[in-house]
Amino acid sequence: MEEIVDKAYEDIKTMKVRGALDIAISAAETLKKVVFSDSEDTQELLQKLKSSGERLKSARPTAVSLPNAVDYILHLAGKNSGLGLKDFRGKLSESIDGFIEEQNQALKKIAEIGSHLVEDRDVILTHCNSDTVDMLLKRAWDDGKRFEVFCTETRPRYQGHITARELSSHGIPTTLVVDSAVHLLMKEMKVDKVVVGADTVYANGDMINKIGTSQIALCAKEMDVDFIVATESLKLCPQSLLGSKREIEYRDPSEIISPDKLPGVKILNPAFDITNADYITVFVTEFGVIPPEAVYHLLREKFGWELKL
Amino acid sequence: MEEIVDKAYEDIKTMKVRGALDIAISAAETLKKVVFSDSEDTQELLQKLKSSGERLKSARPTAVSLPNAVDYILHLAGKNSGLGLKDFRGKLSESIDGFIEEQNQALKKIAEIGSHLVEDRDVILTHCNSDTVDMLLKRAWDDGKRFEVFCTETRPRYQGHITARELSSHGIPTTLVVDSAVHLLMKEMKVDKVVVGADTVYANGDMINKIGTSQIALCAKEMDVDFIVATESLKLCPQSLLGSKREIEYRDPSEIISPDKLPGVKILNPAFDITNADYITVFVTEFGVIPPEAVYHLLREKFGWELKL
Amino acid sequence: MEEIVDKAYEDIKTMKVRGALDIAISAAETLKKVVFSDSEDTQELLQKLKSSGERLKSARPTAVSLPNAVDYILHLAGKNSGLGLKDFRGKLSESIDGFIEEQNQALKKIAEIGSHLVEDRDVILTHCNSDTVDMLLKRAWDDGKRFEVFCTETRPRYQGHITARELSSHGIPTTLVVDSAVHLLMKEMKVDKVVVGADTVYANGDMINKIGTSQIALCAKEMDVDFIVATESLKLCPQSLLGSKREIEYRDPSEIISPDKLPGVKILNPAFDITNADYITVFVTEFGVIPPEAVYHLLREKFGWELKL
Amino acid sequence: MEEIVDKAYEDIKTMKVRGALDIAISAAETLKKVVFSDSEDTQELLQKLKSSGERLKSARPTAVSLPNAVDYILHLAGKNSGLGLKDFRGKLSESIDGFIEEQNQALKKIAEIGSHLVEDRDVILTHCNSDTVDMLLKRAWDDGKRFEVFCTETRPRYQGHITARELSSHGIPTTLVVDSAVHLLMKEMKVDKVVVGADTVYANGDMINKIGTSQIALCAKEMDVDFIVATESLKLCPQSLLGSKREIEYRDPSEIISPDKLPGVKILNPAFDITNADYITVFVTEFGVIPPEAVYHLLREKFGWELKL
Amino acid sequence: MEEIVDKAYEDIKTMKVRGALDIAISAAETLKKVVFSDSEDTQELLQKLKSSGERLKSARPTAVSLPNAVDYILHLAGKNSGLGLKDFRGKLSESIDGFIEEQNQALKKIAEIGSHLVEDRDVILTHCNSDTVDMLLKRAWDDGKRFEVFCTETRPRYQGHITARELSSHGIPTTLVVDSAVHLLMKEMKVDKVVVGADTVYANGDMINKIGTSQIALCAKEMDVDFIVATESLKLCPQSLLGSKREIEYRDPSEIISPDKLPGVKILNPAFDITNADYITVFVTEFGVIPPEAVYHLLREKFGWELKL
Amino acid sequence: MEEIVDKAYEDIKTMKVRGALDIAISAAETLKKVVFSDSEDTQELLQKLKSSGERLKSARPTAVSLPNAVDYILHLAGKNSGLGLKDFRGKLSESIDGFIEEQNQALKKIAEIGSHLVEDRDVILTHCNSDTVDMLLKRAWDDGKRFEVFCTETRPRYQGHITARELSSHGIPTTLVVDSAVHLLMKEMKVDKVVVGADTVYANGDMINKIGTSQIALCAKEMDVDFIVATESLKLCPQSLLGSKREIEYRDPSEIISPDKLPGVKILNPAFDITNADYITVFVTEFGVIPPEAVYHLLREKFGWELKL
Repeated sequence: MEEIVDKAYEDIKTMKVRGALDIAISAAETLKKVVFSDSEDTQELLQKLKSSGERLKSARPTAVSLPNAVDYILHLAGKNSGLGLKDFRGKLSESIDGFIEEQNQALKKIAEIGSHLVEDRDVILTHCNSDTVDMLLKRAWDDGKRFEVFCTETRPRYQGHITARELSSHGIPTTLVVDSAVHLLMKEMKVDKVVVGADTVYANGDMINKIGTSQIALCAKEMDVDFIVATESLKLCPQSLLGSKREIEYRDPSEIISPDKLPGVKILNPAFDITNADYITVFVTEFGVIPPEAVYHLLREKFGWELKL
Repeated sequence: MEEIVDKAYEDIKTMKVRGALDIAISAAETLKKVVFSDSEDTQELLQKLKSSGERLKSARPTAVSLPNAVDYILHLAGKNSGLGLKDFRGKLSESIDGFIEEQNQALKKIAEIGSHLVEDRDVILTHCNSDTVDMLLKRAWDDGKRFEVFCTETRPRYQGHITARELSSHGIPTTLVVDSAVHLLMKEMKVDKVVVGADTVYANGDMINKIGTSQIALCAKEMDVDFIVATESLKLCPQSLLGSKREIEYRDPSEIISPDKLPGVKILNPAFDITNADYITVFVTEFGVIPPEAVYHLLREKFGWELKL
Repeated sequence: MEEIVDKAYEDIKTMKVRGALDIAISAAETLKKVVFSDSEDTQELLQKLKSSGERLKSARPTAVSLPNAVDYILHLAGKNSGLGLKDFRGKLSESIDGFIEEQNQALKKIAEIGSHLVEDRDVILTHCNSDTVDMLLKRAWDDGKRFEVFCTETRPRYQGHITARELSSHGIPTTLVVDSAVHLLMKEMKVDKVVVGADTVYANGDMINKIGTSQIALCAKEMDVDFIVATESLKLCPQSLLGSKREIEYRDPSEIISPDKLPGVKILNPAFDITNADYITVFVTEFGVIPPEAVYHLLREKFGWELKL
Repeated sequence: MEEIVDKAYEDIKTMKVRGALDIAISAAETLKKVVFSDSEDTQELLQKLKSSGERLKSARPTAVSLPNAVDYILHLAGKNSGLGLKDFRGKLSESIDGFIEEQNQALKKIAEIGSHLVEDRDVILTHCNSDTVDMLLKRAWDDGKRFEVFCTETRPRYQGHITARELSSHGIPTTLVVDSAVHLLMKEMKVDKVVVGADTVYANGDMINKIGTSQIALCAKEMDVDFIVATESLKLCPQSLLGSKREIEYRDPSEIISPDKLPGVKILNPAFDITNADYITVFVTEFGVIPPEAVYHLLREKFGWELKL
Repeated sequence: MEEIVDKAYEDIKTMKVRGALDIAISAAETLKKVVFSDSEDTQELLQKLKSSGERLKSARPTAVSLPNAVDYILHLAGKNSGLGLKDFRGKLSESIDGFIEEQNQALKKIAEIGSHLVEDRDVILTHCNSDTVDMLLKRAWDDGKRFEVFCTETRPRYQGHITARELSSHGIPTTLVVDSAVHLLMKEMKVDKVVVGADTVYANGDMINKIGTSQIALCAKEMDVDFIVATESLKLCPQSLLGSKREIEYRDPSEIISPDKLPGVKILNPAFDITNADYITVFVTEFGVIPPEAVYHLLREKFGWELKL
Repeated sequence: MEEIVDKAYEDIKTMKVRGALDIAISAAETLKKVVFSDSEDTQELLQKLKSSGERLKSARPTAVSLPNAVDYILHLAGKNSGLGLKDFRGKLSESIDGFIEEQNQALKKIAEIGSHLVEDRDVILTHCNSDTVDMLLKRAWDDGKRFEVFCTETRPRYQGHITARELSSHGIPTTLVVDSAVHLLMKEMKVDKVVVGADTVYANGDMINKIGTSQIALCAKEMDVDFIVATESLKLCPQSLLGSKREIEYRDPSEIISPDKLPGVKILNPAFDITNADYITVFVTEFGVIPPEAVYHLLREKFGWELKL
């Protein structure tokens, strides 16, 4: 059984499994396998589940969907700890299946709901690359909406190229610009909406996403452009209710320029920034379109068990 | 004589002569040579000066310092058109020399005045590469101020690398970041001041500069960071008083990415944007530190002759 | 039975029955009559209720109170569909009575709660004509508060005349102005509060009301004047949680001016506009005084059954 | 001679002569006639000019162009009071002719300059009826710009109908709306620019215009729409430099509704409001396009003689 | 028994017992004693509890924690009124013990949660004196955070001296300033966070606290400084959901200056002001860190029983 | 002669002579005496004037009126340096007399102009004590305006007591409050205008005044209350055009509290703060009512000779 957990741990750590959703599902499936591993009784199995969960969580400390998935399953396990081993296995594996199914439906549901927000002749700006956003825009296109999309190139790793290719090959008119052109673009091209994904969403509606997102949100605010965040509820951060914040990751300078080309110059490469809730119009989640102020409510509803508040 | 004008025209057009100041001085020196070319009388010479001026102005239609220099010298010529040929030549060549000397002093004066605005322990952000800004920052360093500078890389042409090298080799602690990191940087690093140059300044205090400048100004405004523009008065645009605006230049897409790598995707490469006067704290000019609202005043004082209002 | 539904449908469609509340109650009473119409069994009756409900809803597609009432009653019917015909009729008709009673109490409750927000010497501005607002202001007057009211005339249909007459004949000092005078009025007369009704309230706290409301709200925001919306919870729009928006109705141009008096001129007559949640201080509902951000919460609490989220 | 002044006084008072420009020219022409009336010497004539001027000024106390014209001519008279009677007459009548010519050119110049600000595909909103604005828009149309215009009806006197007819018959696509529709219109129709006239402009850039103007300006500010005021410099108010303000005129209630239709209801009919300089993008004057902050500058330049500061 | 209530009443009224928490606990303990006072039956005891509760509430009409505690206990009593006397006493006294224990834990929990919000090198400003804030800052210091604190002196009663002494003697670097220095301080000293307590919190997130708090919050808003309110949930005001507001207390003028030193001058001494929810970043409560918009939610969750909504 | 300068230097340094105006006049009178001291020729006298001027300027380095007066007189001296000794003395002493007379008139002129800005029923707030403001308010009262005034006590030196006494004894209804009550006061008492003096005014319209002024200005801005600064042009700071800023003076901590009462606590006592030009409605100067943006204009007009720009 340990090999199973080790393998999942490695796959997540080495980014063989990546994307908030895939990571969460992989963790859930791994824990389901643990449920059927050899155990004397429920208590022993419970211990195994806990230690496996902790190990899995340590694979990617910053992705909030991973601890959310693990903690939720451990929570379910705890609630059923009074059952005999067989019943426990039956009940828990069923619940895990339900959880996985829910996550699989979430993206589809977000795309379906979010498509209502797209209107004919919209000029939409997106930043970086997000599966949720891509799916939402394609769904809107398939629903017959006719709009165009601007993608930033998203330095330093140019994930905007992926988005541009994805949307363009789906038939959506797509234009690429440098990250610095956002402000001009909003004015000259009369951008109607910004649609981006999220890495982590805080209880107060602030959210963490790819570096550059927060200044796009500020531009949108200034020009009264809707700023829409498409995200699964699995990215809500329960710990933020207790005042904890996640660290902003600084990556290798060589992603920007080989340091030996600028001797004596320091290079900083922050990967994410924080967008203030005031600059966000709505979140599109699998539980509907909600204002940033309602994140707190959704968080308590979905993750209240975890906080013991 | 025509060859002289042709050569200057070519040098400016092919960017052998570049930079707002050098272009203006080159045009002035060329017109001074025309002053001493063969002519029957003052009227004939005046005609030659006008046609030479028009030709020079057509070399780089967007650089406002060029028409400003030419128009000013033609204006001086017009004022002295009642003189005999010899006196006319004496008077005008002297005035041109004065004009050139003034321009040469302008940069030095701006650096000297601007240095007063830099304070110990300042964290300063700059964008793109500007001779005026580099000179100002070096002067402040030489005046004993101890501060650090953040440079954006400035996509698509990476002129931020030049700035980083320039300042770093002068001993100033310098850090490079991607253009998208500005908003995070201002918050996390507590940036105190932004200092940038200008390409063109309008009567209402708006200004044109490298793409990305306007969103940096917006971030600065949001966080109450001073936004300082260092610029010679030669970059003020008299025609803006009549409601004329300059075109924003769109450059070749291949500066961003080879278009064949993104088939079907449109690529837009605007080179400049417009920063709203509301977001500018002050302009540092050779005539002192002035608020954006005073640009109108300076414009009428320096270029009023041109507008016949 | 069909005749009963046909009659109610006609009465609503031709505006013989009008006002959000009266429409909702009329629909509820009609459905109650359907409950006692001839039916073989519960399932057949359920079908009749559904088709009757759909027909009623189509009478006035824009008034959100109508589908809310119908959908709520159908929801109750669904929950009791396991009962035998007699029990089903008993239970459902009782629930419908409860619903009607609740709606009748809602207006009274809003007036009672809202009266607390009115203070002596208040200068209050209202727009258009709303039963809820009239009742609230009269209640405050009857509670001994002494204040004065400004009414806009509310072009093109001059509903402000109705409000002026209503309040004035109740003894409240009332002044009429043109719609354009709002901004001046707020400044010169030191308006303390704006109180208006609502046609539809969205999940994010935005609300639809008579054309002109949103610019009054903007003026109030600018001058730090309280902007109070008095509305029954029946006007909350559950579908907005799914990202759907209601169409803004454009009415006949001749309400503004006979088109033949302005040949060649196009005339647009939008009947409603959307007021941003940021400009609303509080909603006064029968469930208390709530900030716009809490609409989402109330919506899920009251209409969660409808959304299956 | 007194009859001449009396007649001009009556024509202005009874609005036979109306419009800021026509009033100013009429006063100037009247004073020119006084210059050639019987007089013993320069001093006696000077006295006659002063008393005639005071009488003319009292005909319409609120129109700032009238005292500006009279005071300017009296100022010219004062400056030449050392001359003999014949020279005085020659010099002054010549100056008055110059003044009249300047005013006649002003409107044309404003239209010419303002036309530069109109761009193809612009959606332009205007309010009330202004000759200056009509001329500017027609000039832009004649210069080949293709745009459309929205006119408010402008309650209570419906001057918007005049504007709609004027522009529409010039071939400009024109749409009429009620005054309350401005906020919706800006959002839905993506208005690019507001262009209005002015009655009076203060030293600090604030301006008085038809009731409703200030809330349109506020809407424009909120949505980052350019707010352009087209006005002759003759409407600048020198006394505002001394802190004086002009009274807002309240007109007859019956312009809004016959008071006997609303017994017991007070009716207020303010005719003008004040638009804050912060909400004005630029003024288009015969001296160029200037930001509101430059009004002070222009005022001192043109009317400094009057203030003795 | 009446003596017990009288004594508690006096202790609260004369401020022998003071501080929101101590008052609430004192009232709870007193009611617990009443539970065991002589009574014929449950109904009689219930009456005694009610009258005792009313008396206690009248001791300090402005402190919201007092009526909250009393009303909560009476609510519990009401729920158990069906029990026999003995069971009633057992059940209710147990619930009161639970309530007291909860309140005692609340402060500790707030300090623990709030400590997460303090970061190394923070510059923190506080106003007046609050046990909750003192405890939070000391806990953060004990958790190893290294920061400095600025205290306002807090005229007229100088409670800032108490705070300065408390924190300084705990080893925290502390600086005292006059109340007027807040704006300068924020700019010059780069304040990172304001942390204050609250007297009362409204349903819409507005809060009442010591005079001067609201202008500090405004300064924080302007400069993008976090404004953190540390408060027990017992200070939420359920009545605000019904639109009621609490009176601002005006205290004796002699706290400011002996009136005979300023004959003829009126002296006003308001003790509290209201801080707008827009200026509050988060509340730190024993139920986690919540945005102001979530107060409504918490209020309904904790005090919903009281409102019968 | 040296004794005369020494005495004036001492009188200014020891604050025997105080107030911006009195200091400037004292310096002018002293220099006039130097004009008539023994000298061989104009050049020698010019040298004496320069050294006397420098000594006088060093007496109070922060009061901008002092160097302004001295530099202006030295400038006049320089302009007349070509004259013989007798003519030089005659011309210069006459100019100095003119300068003194101008300054004496300035206060009176400001009061006269500023009185126009006060309206019946105004509620006016002032801070600290300013002769210019006192004079302005008394003049308005004498002009028949009926208003009331609120004074802050102005910690730490309570100069608000002086203002309260001054205005109250002139018959003006006056109320005293603590500095912290400003925000509440503006809201509850509906303050219409703030009127304060200035210590120094910068080219960009920012101004230095007593600590606390800038947060009052911020409150005024938030609530759309006019913020009026009454100041002589002698307080404009020409050096600010070159980017120089004046140091904020930190005074003795014991003005706030005896440090031995708070052992271990640091005490900071800044005496002034800087009010941003954006928060200032107008300046009332002896040259009229001007917006902050016009300060640059006035500065160049009055002090351009000094800057050699």
